[in-house]
Amino acid sequence: MSMSRKKVSVIGSGFTGATTAFLLAQKELCDVVLVDIPNMESATKGKALDMLEASPVQGFDASITGTSDYGDTRGSDVVIITAGIARKPGMSRDDLVQTNQKVMKSVTAEIVKHSPETTIIVLTNPVDAMTYTVYKESGLPKSRVIGQSGVLDTARFRTFVAQELNVSVKDVSGFVLGGHGDDMVPLVRYSAAGGVPLEKLISEERIEEIVQRTRKGGAEIVNLLGNGSAYYAPAAALVEMAEAILKDQKRIIPAIAYLEGEFGMDGIYMGVPTVLGKDGIEKIIELELTDDEKQALSKSADSVKAVMKILV
Amino acid sequence: MSMSRKKVSVIGSGFTGATTAFLLAQKELCDVVLVDIPNMESATKGKALDMLEASPVQGFDASITGTSDYGDTRGSDVVIITAGIARKPGMSRDDLVQTNQKVMKSVTAEIVKHSPETTIIVLTNPVDAMTYTVYKESGLPKSRVIGQSGVLDTARFRTFVAQELNVSVKDVSGFVLGGHGDDMVPLVRYSAAGGVPLEKLISEERIEEIVQRTRKGGAEIVNLLGNGSAYYAPAAALVEMAEAILKDQKRIIPAIAYLEGEFGMDGIYMGVPTVLGKDGIEKIIELELTDDEKQALSKSADSVKAVMKILV
Amino acid sequence: MSMSRKKVSVIGSGFTGATTAFLLAQKELCDVVLVDIPNMESATKGKALDMLEASPVQGFDASITGTSDYGDTRGSDVVIITAGIARKPGMSRDDLVQTNQKVMKSVTAEIVKHSPETTIIVLTNPVDAMTYTVYKESGLPKSRVIGQSGVLDTARFRTFVAQELNVSVKDVSGFVLGGHGDDMVPLVRYSAAGGVPLEKLISEERIEEIVQRTRKGGAEIVNLLGNGSAYYAPAAALVEMAEAILKDQKRIIPAIAYLEGEFGMDGIYMGVPTVLGKDGIEKIIELELTDDEKQALSKSADSVKAVMKILV
Amino acid sequence: MSMSRKKVSVIGSGFTGATTAFLLAQKELCDVVLVDIPNMESATKGKALDMLEASPVQGFDASITGTSDYGDTRGSDVVIITAGIARKPGMSRDDLVQTNQKVMKSVTAEIVKHSPETTIIVLTNPVDAMTYTVYKESGLPKSRVIGQSGVLDTARFRTFVAQELNVSVKDVSGFVLGGHGDDMVPLVRYSAAGGVPLEKLISEERIEEIVQRTRKGGAEIVNLLGNGSAYYAPAAALVEMAEAILKDQKRIIPAIAYLEGEFGMDGIYMGVPTVLGKDGIEKIIELELTDDEKQALSKSADSVKAVMKILV
Repeated sequence: MSMSRKKVSVIGSGFTGATTAFLLAQKELCDVVLVDIPNMESATKGKALDMLEASPVQGFDASITGTSDYGDTRGSDVVIITAGIARKPGMSRDDLVQTNQKVMKSVTAEIVKHSPETTIIVLTNPVDAMTYTVYKESGLPKSRVIGQSGVLDTARFRTFVAQELNVSVKDVSGFVLGGHGDDMVPLVRYSAAGGVPLEKLISEERIEEIVQRTRKGGAEIVNLLGNGSAYYAPAAALVEMAEAILKDQKRIIPAIAYLEGEFGMDGIYMGVPTVLGKDGIEKIIELELTDDEKQALSKSADSVKAVMKILV
Repeated sequence: MSMSRKKVSVIGSGFTGATTAFLLAQKELCDVVLVDIPNMESATKGKALDMLEASPVQGFDASITGTSDYGDTRGSDVVIITAGIARKPGMSRDDLVQTNQKVMKSVTAEIVKHSPETTIIVLTNPVDAMTYTVYKESGLPKSRVIGQSGVLDTARFRTFVAQELNVSVKDVSGFVLGGHGDDMVPLVRYSAAGGVPLEKLISEERIEEIVQRTRKGGAEIVNLLGNGSAYYAPAAALVEMAEAILKDQKRIIPAIAYLEGEFGMDGIYMGVPTVLGKDGIEKIIELELTDDEKQALSKSADSVKAVMKILV
Repeated sequence: MSMSRKKVSVIGSGFTGATTAFLLAQKELCDVVLVDIPNMESATKGKALDMLEASPVQGFDASITGTSDYGDTRGSDVVIITAGIARKPGMSRDDLVQTNQKVMKSVTAEIVKHSPETTIIVLTNPVDAMTYTVYKESGLPKSRVIGQSGVLDTARFRTFVAQELNVSVKDVSGFVLGGHGDDMVPLVRYSAAGGVPLEKLISEERIEEIVQRTRKGGAEIVNLLGNGSAYYAPAAALVEMAEAILKDQKRIIPAIAYLEGEFGMDGIYMGVPTVLGKDGIEKIIELELTDDEKQALSKSADSVKAVMKILV
Repeated sequence: MSMSRKKVSVIGSGFTGATTAFLLAQKELCDVVLVDIPNMESATKGKALDMLEASPVQGFDASITGTSDYGDTRGSDVVIITAGIARKPGMSRDDLVQTNQKVMKSVTAEIVKHSPETTIIVLTNPVDAMTYTVYKESGLPKSRVIGQSGVLDTARFRTFVAQELNVSVKDVSGFVLGGHGDDMVPLVRYSAAGGVPLEKLISEERIEEIVQRTRKGGAEIVNLLGNGSAYYAPAAALVEMAEAILKDQKRIIPAIAYLEGEFGMDGIYMGVPTVLGKDGIEKIIELELTDDEKQALSKSADSVKAVMKILV
């Protein structure tokens, strides 16, 4: 029966982190602490102040603070990690993985030092392996360390389907399992518009094209932007997950969860349907899969494991 | 490129009509005119003023007017009909139908006199026959005369499923065809939680119980209230339909539409999946049905026709 | 760092109580328990279920429960009291006061038994004396027992001013002190439209007419309705106060507070500007008053004291 | 009685333009066309697509399009201009003014070619002179060419006051006249918290410090960011103005309006309180000023005129 405001810390003040902070505050879900490294501290404070100055006009009450001091994150209900580097031309995958692994380790140590009972949501790529790294480093129960990929993948899928059918995005649902992007396993038979299975509404060929476009959805934005990557939709995805936890909504949301037997997988983080509530991942929803789906999921798991082997 | 506010008239200032007016204004969808018969005019004005006095606190800008003068409805973009009587103990079905038919006729004549290009949404029971009556009387194209039943029926179904599974109502979808209440044809195979078909999540028996409870959903509320019937959920349903039209959202929404060949029916109004946008019903989505579903739909159509025969 | 949902109990399931419950749930502020006496329990359950069935359509996650068992209110963060009778023709004021005093006493005893650290907001009339009764009976600190009148009075004032000027209600502010209705002390010099003092925008005469209309605002609705009294705007007012507390918003809101020296008053509940946050009334904002205002406030206090003398 | 969606074009796809586009779509106010020069077209399309992919998660229906073809802006209800350059180190003021003047001219010609009855809101600096340039070039009535500065200035002022008093931003109002930033003329006597004049709540010295901080509010963000300038609060300000027009809200909002005698000024654009509705600036609210305020406003006007002299 405490009525103090909820608190969320967002690690990494780049476009995704900043947009996430703004969307959280805008919904009056919590006070927000935006954290970055010391030499970004001034810019982080600038972004936080700019957002705060939007609050009288947008009509929300929330404090938004920029900092490089993890002490300011003390007592966070949820922490969202967007920090890390993106793969640059010429960089090997191993370099990317090991660099971001280092970032995850140092960031996680700081997070749990100040918020030992928090729930962490990870966005940093390669997200399955990074979520695993945070889990191991944090000492938190598996239900409290969660990765994002499925909300974003299905958001893109739903957008493309809504455009194809010229209907509201509100009425289109999608369903994916497994890894992010290329490793995504779409369950088209569980995707629908207005409840009607897509297969009744769109030709098999067009569906396949939409699935392929979804798989390459991140790259499509990167190519268009020329410089940088998507941040509006990823931020929206993170906020939906955080909201489900902060408000104990028992939302059924695809999330990267630690599997111990579910879907025949053990000891890896992978995207599966979950129930998100105040305790983080409160349930994993298991499904019977077709042989094709099992095979695709297994391939997706192999990709995750290949990345995990790079971890040092 | 006109930026004058949208206008919706709600006919009938009872609980459902009043709640509908409030929810429309609260969303800043339109200005609202609440209409009732002359000897209810003062009370209607009182309700409208009370709602308006909530606007500074709830933070919405919309005019809400109570009246008995249809001249005030002039130029309505949408008109919602909630007027009519409920069946009272001892009243024959024929009496109910013919009394409400008379109400529909007089109300419709007034509506189209002042808003000859409007879109009408009908709630009055028996809703299939009453929507038909309004259609015939109005001279409007069939796409502009629409009945409500499926949004409410699925809302109840979704509520019960969300309770059963202890998950968010946001993630449960339902699907019904055919008539309202007892004649409802639920397509359970098109109903899902988080995209997962209900049949994978709930036993067949419990689903059947939930379907039965949904069919009797109106009566359940009537019995609990002791006096009067449901109005919050019906009003919410009407507002969702009106919003889809006012904002041209292309929502896929179950609605009572005039069928001319679709689903093998001709010349009757029945509940089917539709796309609602600025032109009213912009599309009817046809589905292949199983033999069982066909039979149930046919039975539902027979009920509608039986009521239509009572029309004078 | 608890993320369980907030909980609000609303005592009294009449129009105001029910509308309050709906608006609370609709904003996803909390789970709601709607309480009434045993012979109203079935109807209360019916209203709660009807509201819940609106949730999939309006898109909110909140449980809404109807009950006559105060055990169901256990652990409420906020309790709102709308119970009590309205003055009927032929009823003496003493009868009204003493009847509602009895209701307050029995209701309060039940509330604090199950939620000993809650915050209570009182709407029942005569509200100043009833808030005092609840305060004495509850044993709660004065900051946690609060009466509503000023939000409603200023909402009406703002509505009338916005109509007079044909501007948005969002940009009109009002300011009242003292008792509800006839005893209201409007501080017109602190009322503005777009920041501009009303006196610069509206003639003194028209302002006086608007003040008078505001004073009689409750009666205006009663007269129009013929049967019953306002409930939309009162419910909205209660919800704004509850929201400020539940979300720790530090809103500056006029509220009926226990005065111990402030504004020269001692030992009575009266309407004053307050800061509402997680601890209830966190601050009373004192103002210098003109001699006229002091006199009006003193007269208002006399009215409150006259009613308090009737308390048994 | 047309129910097609509203349409807003945002010229300039930088941070402010992009954020404006997102906030407009998020509120379902309109479909959005984001326009930039041909060599930014791909990036503009990328941003628009990223925003659109957030729509299923954030739950809004709006099309968002990136383009460099003004043909796509055809029939815009409102056009918002954020294009232009920022002053760089070593650049003379004359260079800045004349460069942005050229941008305004070419952009305006394209806008009115495709939307001859639109309303234009200008953000580009120096905003008073740029709004004047757009007005002259467009041939639109003065009520349909509007500059933004006061919403942003008061938003900053309100933020700082809310922090000072530890109260909700919702309850703090501010009031400015004249130019943007350094030339801002704050009317502190018209600024309040919860209706209470600030002078009763904060010392004169602290108010003066807050006024000075507000004047330098843009520079504060620029200095913190190190690279770039504020965009969240400016975007929010633009969206509030556009919403008032699109929804015909009759909001009282400070705006840069063309003065022909009001406040003793003639033939210049300056910040004054206005009523914004479907016809753009529907009214300018004149105030009596103190001698000090008159002098400050006159100085502000001189600054505007000095910039106007640089226009070629």
